[in-house]
Amino acid sequence: MLGACEQHGYLSLLTDAKIPLALADAASQQTNTLVAPPVNFGASPYFLAYPGTLSLRLNTFVDLVEDLVRSAYGQGFRRFLFLNGHGGNDSARVRLYELANQLPGMHLAWYAWWASHSVEIIAQKYELKPSHGNWLEAFTFTQVVELPDEGKVPPPVRGLLSAEEARHVYGDGSFGGPYKADKAILDEVFAACLSDILQLLQFE
Amino acid sequence: MLGACEQHGYLSLLTDAKIPLALADAASQQTNTLVAPPVNFGASPYFLAYPGTLSLRLNTFVDLVEDLVRSAYGQGFRRFLFLNGHGGNDSARVRLYELANQLPGMHLAWYAWWASHSVEIIAQKYELKPSHGNWLEAFTFTQVVELPDEGKVPPPVRGLLSAEEARHVYGDGSFGGPYKADKAILDEVFAACLSDILQLLQFE
Amino acid sequence: MLGACEQHGYLSLLTDAKIPLALADAASQQTNTLVAPPVNFGASPYFLAYPGTLSLRLNTFVDLVEDLVRSAYGQGFRRFLFLNGHGGNDSARVRLYELANQLPGMHLAWYAWWASHSVEIIAQKYELKPSHGNWLEAFTFTQVVELPDEGKVPPPVRGLLSAEEARHVYGDGSFGGPYKADKAILDEVFAACLSDILQLLQFE
Amino acid sequence: MLGACEQHGYLSLLTDAKIPLALADAASQQTNTLVAPPVNFGASPYFLAYPGTLSLRLNTFVDLVEDLVRSAYGQGFRRFLFLNGHGGNDSARVRLYELANQLPGMHLAWYAWWASHSVEIIAQKYELKPSHGNWLEAFTFTQVVELPDEGKVPPPVRGLLSAEEARHVYGDGSFGGPYKADKAILDEVFAACLSDILQLLQFE
Amino acid sequence: MLGACEQHGYLSLLTDAKIPLALADAASQQTNTLVAPPVNFGASPYFLAYPGTLSLRLNTFVDLVEDLVRSAYGQGFRRFLFLNGHGGNDSARVRLYELANQLPGMHLAWYAWWASHSVEIIAQKYELKPSHGNWLEAFTFTQVVELPDEGKVPPPVRGLLSAEEARHVYGDGSFGGPYKADKAILDEVFAACLSDILQLLQFE
Amino acid sequence: MLGACEQHGYLSLLTDAKIPLALADAASQQTNTLVAPPVNFGASPYFLAYPGTLSLRLNTFVDLVEDLVRSAYGQGFRRFLFLNGHGGNDSARVRLYELANQLPGMHLAWYAWWASHSVEIIAQKYELKPSHGNWLEAFTFTQVVELPDEGKVPPPVRGLLSAEEARHVYGDGSFGGPYKADKAILDEVFAACLSDILQLLQFE
Repeated sequence: MLGACEQHGYLSLLTDAKIPLALADAASQQTNTLVAPPVNFGASPYFLAYPGTLSLRLNTFVDLVEDLVRSAYGQGFRRFLFLNGHGGNDSARVRLYELANQLPGMHLAWYAWWASHSVEIIAQKYELKPSHGNWLEAFTFTQVVELPDEGKVPPPVRGLLSAEEARHVYGDGSFGGPYKADKAILDEVFAACLSDILQLLQFE
Repeated sequence: MLGACEQHGYLSLLTDAKIPLALADAASQQTNTLVAPPVNFGASPYFLAYPGTLSLRLNTFVDLVEDLVRSAYGQGFRRFLFLNGHGGNDSARVRLYELANQLPGMHLAWYAWWASHSVEIIAQKYELKPSHGNWLEAFTFTQVVELPDEGKVPPPVRGLLSAEEARHVYGDGSFGGPYKADKAILDEVFAACLSDILQLLQFE
Repeated sequence: MLGACEQHGYLSLLTDAKIPLALADAASQQTNTLVAPPVNFGASPYFLAYPGTLSLRLNTFVDLVEDLVRSAYGQGFRRFLFLNGHGGNDSARVRLYELANQLPGMHLAWYAWWASHSVEIIAQKYELKPSHGNWLEAFTFTQVVELPDEGKVPPPVRGLLSAEEARHVYGDGSFGGPYKADKAILDEVFAACLSDILQLLQFE
Repeated sequence: MLGACEQHGYLSLLTDAKIPLALADAASQQTNTLVAPPVNFGASPYFLAYPGTLSLRLNTFVDLVEDLVRSAYGQGFRRFLFLNGHGGNDSARVRLYELANQLPGMHLAWYAWWASHSVEIIAQKYELKPSHGNWLEAFTFTQVVELPDEGKVPPPVRGLLSAEEARHVYGDGSFGGPYKADKAILDEVFAACLSDILQLLQFE
Repeated sequence: MLGACEQHGYLSLLTDAKIPLALADAASQQTNTLVAPPVNFGASPYFLAYPGTLSLRLNTFVDLVEDLVRSAYGQGFRRFLFLNGHGGNDSARVRLYELANQLPGMHLAWYAWWASHSVEIIAQKYELKPSHGNWLEAFTFTQVVELPDEGKVPPPVRGLLSAEEARHVYGDGSFGGPYKADKAILDEVFAACLSDILQLLQFE
Repeated sequence: MLGACEQHGYLSLLTDAKIPLALADAASQQTNTLVAPPVNFGASPYFLAYPGTLSLRLNTFVDLVEDLVRSAYGQGFRRFLFLNGHGGNDSARVRLYELANQLPGMHLAWYAWWASHSVEIIAQKYELKPSHGNWLEAFTFTQVVELPDEGKVPPPVRGLLSAEEARHVYGDGSFGGPYKADKAILDEVFAACLSDILQLLQFE
């Protein structure tokens, strides 16, 4: 549902929209839950020096999320599960808390698949560290070019970088680690996240 | 590029995103112009009483457009053609004029296919009046259910209706006229709009 | 009611405020409808390079319109007819639709005299094309200097111009066509618009 | 230049716009200074329960002032004298200070005629206390109905009243004191304020 | 409660927060009124060229005040006394009036100690003129360095200065007059203001 | 530097301001770094049903952070370390990234002490789980009442709760776990965080 259009190294600019959309579609097929059209843009100010990154300002993004919630709430929808694909979008959670105080009877859930406990367990099992633009996001449907065989040493970063600095430091855009993993591992990730989502959709 | 998620009678909720996207893809194939991910939401406050209409506030929508322009401008893009599919989005033009005063060297064009001179001529030729949710938007790729054979008498409307009033007045959501037209006519419409777009893409 | 302070070639900077005000006063005399003080400023970013054009940002303008409506609504007013004199102000319609969803029992109407069907018919009758700063706005009460006898060839414009470009392209500020018309024609225009307004004031 | 449309007891709703406009016109005749169209609305939330008071939100009003300054600054204007007629508009001063930090070479002055030292002296001389909607604002050009002969005892007010409370407390809208004064005194006030303005227009 | 972090000549940067806080604490001890945490920042755009001045934009400051009021109102608080220490914060009064129209049953009072009638009387008694950064604010708890013995001639200022101009004109930051006064006078000031506050806290 | 005024179970309402302030003061003593006045309010919409929680809207809070940065940047400051004490404030990081793109040469660092790797290690060493309002925040200077001896079973929470729901679910306000820990452990936490901060202050 909530994605971003930003650089992901060798992966699609829409990686952060495609993954939650794939999860949403899979969950919808099993539960008939309605899937809203994807929000193709998120808040990615730190990647603006990479061509193709289209970033919304913090305010614009959270206003957009609010407008979607209010539109559907006004029509009687009461249960919203946000499938977020992009870390910079997390601020919307604060706005959702504000809305929860204003719109009675609403059930809100938020799922950031890459930061889920499920993913953490799988990553530990295979001794793979998840990071931006590395193996964890390299699904078949997010790959657009051939991925390097050799992994990348994560550059040391302290403090908050400007977009120019970030491009200088990260080069190809990946935050480091292996660029790819066995399809079986990614299938396991996908299945685990889907399972999380199906449970959240019960809103209990 | 700019669409909306709103009721269109018997047509897809994403009609206003799908048509400009189809035009953009066709133009891109001929010219290799980059197509930005679609903005799936527009400003449709008057349709909010129809379930499925997700409307952005005026400010949110124009801020979003501004953010996309500024993101790409910062990366060196200078030519932007906005393919708009929804009348409520027209206000973004004022914001674009404001941006044109701030970002030197930018070339901006805006194309509202349904309001183009080309469409007007075709409509007159076949004596079909274009309107929201009628034949003009009934492309094969926007149809989701069977369309009625009989047209609809346009309800008389004066003044600005609230969403509740609009749903009461418009019923099935179409503004009236025939619900469908020969595929050949819609192909002619599509081709004429595509031709307009290709000309605009020359930015001369 | 809604005007603008912007260049109009050889006409008054307040042309867009004076015409709707004149219409409002005439309508008020016949109906005793209250006329709010004029909003002397509108959204005219494209004319900012012409000295004397004072333009409000899109947001400022629509916020202002909202504030006026809310002020009067809070005092019990329920019927509002907006007489708009300036194309850049049209975005306020979207805000008015938003307000219509929030303030029950309100009747809103909007009249853009220059774009009315009545004006279109008169223009066709006399084979005069209406445009910014040409004969259509050249009432006796908007003229401040002598008008040229010769008309102007409309400069070709495609895309959205910045204020600097607009001044370069439009020169004296008129969009082209004859600078003046017989007083009888303008009287006819005024009478037709007044008639439209009187009908709208019935709010039926 | 900056006024308001709000209740003034027995005086015109546009009292706060008319007085500075009269002063501006008088000053303009002596100095050829350009007078911008009046801002007919100010921030008067406390009078919203009086029909006819049209109040802008604080933000809307200061944004409007900013837009006017930026429009004229962009065209080369550098000296701005704000003739304010309404106490609720004073917040715009803070925004003007912000603008002074952003727009180099600008000279800004602000004149609130009713709070001037000149008015204070005249009021003391005649032992008349200035207040909202009393003699001080009762110029011939702001009177719309006959004024009461008897003055009014100012109601005691502590704290900030809501609009409903304010209407309850103030009744006819005047804050108390005599409703009128000799025309000679008001002429003296006008002349003293005009003299202040002429001095401020030297921007020294 | 409402302060500022801005230059005060030889006094603490937090002078405008410390004084109302001291008054609030003293009043609280006598009445058990709750004292909210101090707002350490205000709107001081004109002092931004003095290092250490941290100024909020007008909008940010009034939004902050609104948020605090709404937070407490939502929990059942109905009486708010704002002890303001900084002139630039006065615009919040307009926002408070707006809130008073929206939140029924609220009692709002505002106290700007330095501009109170009590201070005016004491200042006249001792023939000391109050001004920014002079004796009136030189309490023992706001002094951070030794104060000059000699007073300062107030520089003549007309119009609204930018921050750069203000620093140039005001030099050490004081607006002029004696830098200090007898502790007994300041005690008298403090006691008079405290007495005002205790009376306001009765909300009658 | 950045705190909050919100419920913390048995701890001070200002817990989230006091801890980073204590850390800042300690770091300042060792390095002479300037410490800005604390921001006593943060974004805590989910605790608004607990009396005493004063929460800023997301926008207000991030605007405030922006204003402080811009104020100091304008005076030549280039290195900013934000010591955050409250999870709801994290959104300000996105705004800081936006600012990093606009203000060249700035070095920004952000430290959320409770979420630091140092704290994580200490917590694991003593087998204590950190959570809102439990032992981790129970420093001597944040305690205001006696703490319970028995810990609390963390209530299960899925989804985003409204403030009313949160108060119902969390009762005393703590998220669960032991309410206190040995002073030695908290000293260790403080020392470890201080060490982190001293390293970040080198901005390398």
